[in-house]
This record gives sequence, C-alpha cells and structure tokens, in this order.
Amino acid sequence: MIAEILATGDELRTGALVDSNSAHIAEALLHNGVDVARHLTVGDDMDMLVTVIGEIAARADLAVVTGGLGPTQDDLTAEALARAAGVPLVEDARALADIELFFSRRNRPLSPSNRKQALLPQGADILYNPVGTAPGFRLRLGRCFFYCLPGVPFEMSRMLAEQVLPHVRELQGPARFYLIRTLACFGLPESVVGEKLAALNNHFQTIKLGLRAKFPEIQVKLYLDCDDRPQGEALLESAAAWVAERLGANLFSRQGDSMSATIGRLLKEAGATLALAESCTGGLIANWLTDTSGSSDYFLFAAVTYADAAKQAILGVPAQTLAQHGAVHERTAEAMAQGVRRVAGSTYGLATTGIAGPGGGSEQKPVGTVCIALAGPGGFSYSRRFHFTYGGRLMNKQLFAMSALDMLRRKLRGEPLS
Amino acid sequence: MIAEILATGDELRTGALVDSNSAHIAEALLHNGVDVARHLTVGDDMDMLVTVIGEIAARADLAVVTGGLGPTQDDLTAEALARAAGVPLVEDARALADIELFFSRRNRPLSPSNRKQALLPQGADILYNPVGTAPGFRLRLGRCFFYCLPGVPFEMSRMLAEQVLPHVRELQGPARFYLIRTLACFGLPESVVGEKLAALNNHFQTIKLGLRAKFPEIQVKLYLDCDDRPQGEALLESAAAWVAERLGANLFSRQGDSMSATIGRLLKEAGATLALAESCTGGLIANWLTDTSGSSDYFLFAAVTYADAAKQAILGVPAQTLAQHGAVHERTAEAMAQGVRRVAGSTYGLATTGIAGPGGGSEQKPVGTVCIALAGPGGFSYSRRFHFTYGGRLMNKQLFAMSALDMLRRKLRGEPLS
Repeated sequence: MIAEILATGDELRTGALVDSNSAHIAEALLHNGVDVARHLTVGDDMDMLVTVIGEIAARADLAVVTGGLGPTQDDLTAEALARAAGVPLVEDARALADIELFFSRRNRPLSPSNRKQALLPQGADILYNPVGTAPGFRLRLGRCFFYCLPGVPFEMSRMLAEQVLPHVRELQGPARFYLIRTLACFGLPESVVGEKLAALNNHFQTIKLGLRAKFPEIQVKLYLDCDDRPQGEALLESAAAWVAERLGANLFSRQGDSMSATIGRLLKEAGATLALAESCTGGLIANWLTDTSGSSDYFLFAAVTYADAAKQAILGVPAQTLAQHGAVHERTAEAMAQGVRRVAGSTYGLATTGIAGPGGGSEQKPVGTVCIALAGPGGFSYSRRFHFTYGGRLMNKQLFAMSALDMLRRKLRGEPLS
Repeated sequence: MIAEILATGDELRTGALVDSNSAHIAEALLHNGVDVARHLTVGDDMDMLVTVIGEIAARADLAVVTGGLGPTQDDLTAEALARAAGVPLVEDARALADIELFFSRRNRPLSPSNRKQALLPQGADILYNPVGTAPGFRLRLGRCFFYCLPGVPFEMSRMLAEQVLPHVRELQGPARFYLIRTLACFGLPESVVGEKLAALNNHFQTIKLGLRAKFPEIQVKLYLDCDDRPQGEALLESAAAWVAERLGANLFSRQGDSMSATIGRLLKEAGATLALAESCTGGLIANWLTDTSGSSDYFLFAAVTYADAAKQAILGVPAQTLAQHGAVHERTAEAMAQGVRRVAGSTYGLATTGIAGPGGGSEQKPVGTVCIALAGPGGFSYSRRFHFTYGGRLMNKQLFAMSALDMLRRKLRGEPLS
C-alpha cells in the first residue's frame, strides 16, 4: 500500500512554521503497518493544490492531507479536492449540525464563514471534529483515499487516531502489527547513547532501533514489525530491559513518560510532597509538574524568587549567605531548598539558582552555570553545581529544570545522586 | 523563479525526526526573493531519489536538497544526482583534500567510508563544508540548479548562508523583495478575525493576508512582493495600521511580539514591577515572563500556591474568604493579588485561581472556570471570572495565563479591561 502525506498552508511553504504534523502522521501510519513514501508541502494556491492532488491520486493508495479546512478565504482544501475529483461542493447536513452544535454549546453565534466549513465535496464522508469547528472528510479519487484533517495539531492527532487509523486498518486486510516502544533517558549525549546500544541487533535481530533527541531528553525507540502481537510485545519487553540495563540510572522511563510524570508517580508511591524554590528556571519546573493532572496531590508550592529580596523575605535565605556567596552558589541553593520546604511543610524542597543568559555571566560563573539543591526529611541536604555549554536562554532553562528533577528522581529511587 | 526543497532520509520519512531544515531554507530563500513552491520528503531509496530529482528538474529553476551526504551506505544523494544527470561519479581532488584536512586537523585517521564523500557527480561544483566532513555540491540538470547540503542543521544553515544564497542572488538578477509583517491578537476566534479583515484587499490590492492560529493567540500575517523595499515597507505599515484599527484592543502587538515580551516592554515603559500569585496556571505565567531576557528588571516574584494552606500562609488570603467562597472565586483571586503585591513590594499583583481539569469541576464551577484578579497602586483592584470551553488541561492553562496577562496589558495601556 503506497501512502503519501500532503501538508498545506502558506505558513508551512514559506517556512514561517515548522511542520510537525507530517512526522506525527508518518509515525502513526507506520505503527499501523503503512510505510509512507513521500511527504509533500504546498501553499494555499488552488491550481497547485489541484495539481498535486491529481499527482498523488495517480501514485498512492492513501493520502493524509492537513490544513486548509478553516473558515477563511485561504482555506481551500475542500474545493481543491472537489475540483480534482470533478464534483461540486455541497452543504453537508451533518457537518452543519456539528458546527451549529459546537457554537450553541459555547453560546457563540454561528458566522457565515463558519457555515462555509460545512461545504464538502459531493460523495465525501465527513470526519467529525470533536474539538474544533473544522470537520474533516474522506474522499476517494480513483484508487486513492484522501483523508483531509485540520492543521491544528491537537485536532489533527485526535481525528487521525479516532477516525482515520481505524479505516486504514480495515483497508490493510490481514493483520500485521507494527509495535513501537519508547524509553526516555537524560544526561548522556546522543552519540554515547548510540554507542551503548550499538549491539542491540546482535541480541534482537528483528527490532529496529531509533534515537530521537527530544531536548533535553533522548528518546530510545524500538520498532518491531510482527504478525503476533503478544509475542511481539514480549520481545519488545525483553529488548526494553536490555536497553534499561545498558543505560542504567540515566534511564528515567521505560514507557516514554515525561520526567514530570515520572516524578509525580514516584512522589505518590512514596506518599511524599514537594515544594520548589525557582530562580533561574523561572517557574518552568512548576509549570511542567502542573501539566500532569492530579499534581495537587504532591505538589504544594513554588516560590519563583527572581529578586534577592524575595529569596530573603519568602524563603528566609540569610542575608549573610547572599552577601558572602552571591545568589548563584551551592550554599544559597541549599538555603532556598530548606526554606521552601519549611514554608510549605513539604517532604522535599528543590531549588535552582543560576545564570540562563544571555546576560549576567562572569568568568567564575559563566552563562550556563546552575546550582541545584535538594532538602528532605531527617536533615537531608544535597547540592551540586552544573555548567552547561549548549546554548541559549530557553535551552538553559530546560537543562536546569531537567537536572533538578533528575536529582529528585535519583533520590526517590535510591540511586546515586548525579 | 520556481524553487523547491527536497529533504531526504528515512528518519524524516518515517516521522522519527521532525524536519526543521526545510522551513529554515524556505524562509531564507523568501528573504532573498525566492518563493518556494513545494517541499518534498523521501527516504533513502535510490529509485525514489532518481525519480523525484527528475520530476524536480522538469519543474523548477532551483532546488535545495538536504541529507544523504554522509559516509554510510544509505547516503545516496551524490549517486542519485549522478544517475539522474546521466554522468559518472568522480573523485573530486578538492573535496578529498578538504576531507583529509578536516581529519588531520583533528588528529583522526581518514576512513575509507569518509573517502567515499569525495565522490561527486561529474560536472558538479563542490560546496565547502567548514564544520563537518560531508562536502556539498551544486549541479545543473537542464535549467535547474540543485544545491545539495548535509542534513545536520548547523552545517546546512552555514553552507546555505555562505555558499548557496550568494549564488541564488546572482541568478536572481534585478532585485525583488518579499516582505512579511506579523501582528498578534488575543480574545477573538480566528473566524471573527478573518471577517473583520476580509476587506483588506479592497484597500491594499497587492498585500496577501494570512491568519495563523498560534494558540492561544491569532497571528495576522501580511505578505508583500515588491521591487522597492522602502515603498513596500511603507505600504505594509499602512496596512498594519488598518488591521490594528479593525482589531482594536484585541491586538496586542503590531510586530509579532509575544504577549510576555509585550508585557515586559509596557512594564519597563511604566517603570513598574510585577508579582504573580498562580494557582491553576501552575507557574506558566512566570515561565513565559522569564523566557524574555532582562525580565528580572520588572518581574520580582511568583507564588505558585496550589494548596489552600499556601494561599493563606504565603499570601495572607483570609481563612474566612476561602471558607466562604472557596478557592475559585473573585474574592479569593483579589486577596491573592493583593497579598502577593504586598509580599513582593511590587507595583502590580496578578492572580489566577481556577479549574484546569480534567478533574475538579462542579456544576457551579465547571472545568474551564478561572477567576483572575489584578491589584495595583492607589488601592486599585479588579477581578473577573472567565469560562472557557475549548478543551484539555494544557489549553486551559494557556488560556488562563494569556487572559491574565491580557488583563494587565489593557490596564497598562489604559484600555477597557476585558
């Protein structure tokens, strides 16, 4: 089965926006046994769209199209498919009802341009959009099924999973299973991870290894094409255990969970709570932790103390510590961690203070320097200075935040602190 | 001049890696007056490469190709170009000398597979790689110039800037300019923004309008293809003013700045400082604000008070207010805003308390409810309850955070509070 992906939109064509949808779709199709041959991106241009739709229809058995389903004039996908198929656009009663329901539920009036979104090529099957106003649709041109989805990633991914992939699996016929297992590690360069895992195929010939830098973590992906799902899953489990052993304490999830979800699970298992004192990370750690639903069970409080005055007033960092060592120092970080733990009454206090840049560096404390401290029960206190040389402010914030959470993770798992 | 981009590699084709190179190249070409018509991605497959190179040569005047120049067996770009052009591969003396120099400078031995990298299609011009072992090359097929670059982003971008773009500018002849102006608004659905701006082309025939939902903001993009840069920029300025008038107080930047950068500029202009009390936003506002370098000038402190106990202990929210109204209420938000302003000694205090979901909602206070309060000098206090119905936890956090910053922005600009 030949599959292609067509991403549409001037913002993609001109490079104003990086296309992450196509990679997501390619991976999801691969997971369902369909290998994508080409990705194509064109702009909001009717002639170009009609041309490439015709080309794809002549080559492929299925195509996933993203973008161009919105309410505005430069949303051309439905009309382009209709022209390529030589059919008129017709107002779809179900599509209109869905759109009307979306607006009435939100007490918003239906605008004429939203009504345009109910116009679909004659013969198309609507793909319901549970989270937006733009319905998608499926249309067959010759032997090729076109699945047209919105360009908004979370709408696209939900409709792909719920409505496109089940249909693709039906087309597929006799079952093959394309299994993917994701593991996540932190603290090793990608090249070192690659070297540590280079012998994988000596032990597991049928498993394909992929490394993906999802900054600041490295994801290890194991791909398996098999005809028996339980057998395949057992083989992936063995391979995951082999990878885990090779990566040791740098591996933080065998299931591809995020660091903050991993921390949440470990804190819950320990019946422990956490408070944060963030300086250079500026609220990023708190933001990550609270992205996980239910985080209020273990996350009590964060103080983002950018100013020294706040470090003293809120956290009780002694003026003398700041005067003697400065804001970026292990002793200051320890006082912050102990202070926030005391103020919040939490099991653990975790603190960051450093220089994310681009300004504020010095010879002794260059940009990329961070001091991280962890305070815990029974007078436990640990701190360490890191120095990262990767790059800009946002990358430094992420490295600092990840290093802090990794320190807590190692403590909770009883592993050597990095 | 018709331009296309071809990204090669199985890791892109299968979705293991998101292709950011093509967007970078498209934007760089656009800034040099070349509008890219298509982006194409295919895997490491000789027949497919030869086929698409032939297709591109028949359509385009120039093509930038990335990937497939490395030392391994699945690096096929040079051979695919040679086959498509019907010429042999020949060892290029300059390319070999460059590779030998790269290795000798690093005291590393030259492997036979690296020597393969000096094989270029006959008639190609080498593109020197100052930062890696893979040289690129330029080859003409028919009327189309192919520029082949490595897939490693920092090697690609440097060679593009230093060796490809100067040649493209030579090809271009008389200068044309492709100007882009970005404006940003918040608080209107994309369809309403589209309707408000539908008449743009009645006033500015040569400007192309694009809307881009960069959740939770909407970006308005104005594109202009012109032959006189100052004239073009003046026209875009007029069009930007027209858009600004139509969008009113919902427009927060005429330059495409982020909301947090806009807030930073306004606070600096006012000589004012800010402290945050974040409950449901969980540190997201602080994280956004501290993404901007120099934010320590105006951002003093954030208290992420997930637990009620922290709201009382840190912010001095009266127990009675919490008992009477609950954590999610305008009075509680006001007490949080006033409390954090007092604790931090800041000009403004901004507070959020709400229900991001998926759990925690009730009939009176469903998921998506947020109370936002702003406290300022002279006893200023304002609060409002919002109810969003868009979707999941992460989107709610973003909408809550954006609404809070927008309240402060309107106050700082003397506009009606939403």
